Amino acid sequence: MPTPLAVAVDFGGTKVEAALVDHDGRLVEGSRFRQPTGRTATIAELETSVGGVVRDAIAALPDGAELVGLGIGCAGPIDRIRGLVSPLNVPHWRDYPLRDFIASVVADSGLDIPVTLEMDGVAITLAEHWVGAAQGVDNVMGMVVSTGIGGGLIVGGRVITGPTGNAGHIGHIEVGDIVGENTFGNPSALEAIASGPHTVAWARHQGFTGTTGEELAAAYAADDEIARRAIARTGEAVGRAIASATALLDLELVAIGGGFSHATPDLFDRMREVIADHYFPYVRKVRIVPSALSSEGPLIGAAALIHRAHLLP
Amino acid sequence: MPTPLAVAVDFGGTKVEAALVDHDGRLVEGSRFRQPTGRTATIAELETSVGGVVRDAIAALPDGAELVGLGIGCAGPIDRIRGLVSPLNVPHWRDYPLRDFIASVVADSGLDIPVTLEMDGVAITLAEHWVGAAQGVDNVMGMVVSTGIGGGLIVGGRVITGPTGNAGHIGHIEVGDIVGENTFGNPSALEAIASGPHTVAWARHQGFTGTTGEELAAAYAADDEIARRAIARTGEAVGRAIASATALLDLELVAIGGGFSHATPDLFDRMREVIADHYFPYVRKVRIVPSALSSEGPLIGAAALIHRAHLLP
Repeated sequence: MPTPLAVAVDFGGTKVEAALVDHDGRLVEGSRFRQPTGRTATIAELETSVGGVVRDAIAALPDGAELVGLGIGCAGPIDRIRGLVSPLNVPHWRDYPLRDFIASVVADSGLDIPVTLEMDGVAITLAEHWVGAAQGVDNVMGMVVSTGIGGGLIVGGRVITGPTGNAGHIGHIEVGDIVGENTFGNPSALEAIASGPHTVAWARHQGFTGTTGEELAAAYAADDEIARRAIARTGEAVGRAIASATALLDLELVAIGGGFSHATPDLFDRMREVIADHYFPYVRKVRIVPSALSSEGPLIGAAALIHRAHLLP
Repeated sequence: MPTPLAVAVDFGGTKVEAALVDHDGRLVEGSRFRQPTGRTATIAELETSVGGVVRDAIAALPDGAELVGLGIGCAGPIDRIRGLVSPLNVPHWRDYPLRDFIASVVADSGLDIPVTLEMDGVAITLAEHWVGAAQGVDNVMGMVVSTGIGGGLIVGGRVITGPTGNAGHIGHIEVGDIVGENTFGNPSALEAIASGPHTVAWARHQGFTGTTGEELAAAYAADDEIARRAIARTGEAVGRAIASATALLDLELVAIGGGFSHATPDLFDRMREVIADHYFPYVRKVRIVPSALSSEGPLIGAAALIHRAHLLP
């Protein structure tokens, strides 16, 4: 019997990747491809990048294997019913029919396989649940703290996509008492306070002269006072958002990845302090852990949309 | 075949009620009983009240009917696995074994029927979905805006209780930009801002001389300036909390009941304005409607824990 493989596609604000992934969540060697995306890319350029990595991954199919489906994780918001995407940081795509475009690339390759689209946060949460930090846990929020803040939800052992596919947008719930930048419409939203760029922006208002999350992490490691306050503020904001989500959903575990989550382990300690101080025992029970996934996580999650489809609605 | 009836029990901070409810969500005439509870009641007094209404309801069983189960909706937090309750406003009960106590009353009556405990917000949401404002809608939050602010969730057509039974605590998610009273540990929590008593407290800080939600509603109707600002502030806070919950869960409908929700229809208009201004189309889609349930709603919801048990995890 041939080995069943999924084509995994991860589309984000800076790059699109595709790879082949087996039913144990492992990438097939030599099957991972990447192309740029970005704020300024035209629709034609984005289609060239997406079509390119999908065709390359399909062409990498090894002997003795067969493709059983293609899963797409895409930055939100999306419309899962119609297969449309409107990634916040890719302004040229508004209600862009990404699922149909990729399905046409697949069909042109002579394949007849299902194509599934979900939000990237949903995909990454499936990956944590499958092979990462949330294995065996039925009530989980996966989070990415990076250029933006995204997430996904598994509740009662099943993925919550929501009717339009947008459940999991933890970056867009409000945090009390801390005010962020007004870049997308709500300075009280977690992402406006605590994403990498918004944390750096706050630090710069206090006098920090660096411009990247990496520089802020380095300043923190060097015991810089502003960097320490910036990390404490961001950790508190993320902790408060997790407390709100846990109050609402009775979560057991939150697994957090993304570039800015690696700034310092103290970021996690600050979040856990917020949770430890909560007045409800059932909120205090939630565990906050770093993602156990490598940079392959989003691709493994996209493949889970095929290999672990039984967890989807 | 005998008519299947459920015993419904609704336990709250001021009273406990029980009634018999048929499989169409209708109360059996003459089967509804009420006893006081309250902050100062001892455990023995609370047990006398609860035992009394349960025995009275069971004794009201009509000819040609049979009892198929007993459902309990109780103010949170609860522990649904162990059947314990710790209602915020009933300080004498902390991890009190309400389910076992009621099961013993049921057994003493010679009955052998299942006894189910869930949070009152979960019960009321089931009632809205069964016979109220949320019929046929798969992604719903039921809310009660009253002495406290509670709620429950149906997502993808199924009830979300959470592993401990506390999912739905919408009163305890944070709201940005508006500060409430510091009575239970978080002045940024929705309940601390926008419950009836906390709204009145804010109005009194501004110079309002009344002491109840009813007086505030009357002042609003008389075009009192402070009352108008108080209602606008509370409507904005509830709207923002609904926006956060919808960002996270992709809700389609929120149905709101509870005494203070009746203060004025303008309260709903203010919530809807907040939603209409949101930057995400999928958040703007959520509809906010008044509960379609009468004061029987919590009892119908408790009965739904038996008659609609297939929607529970």
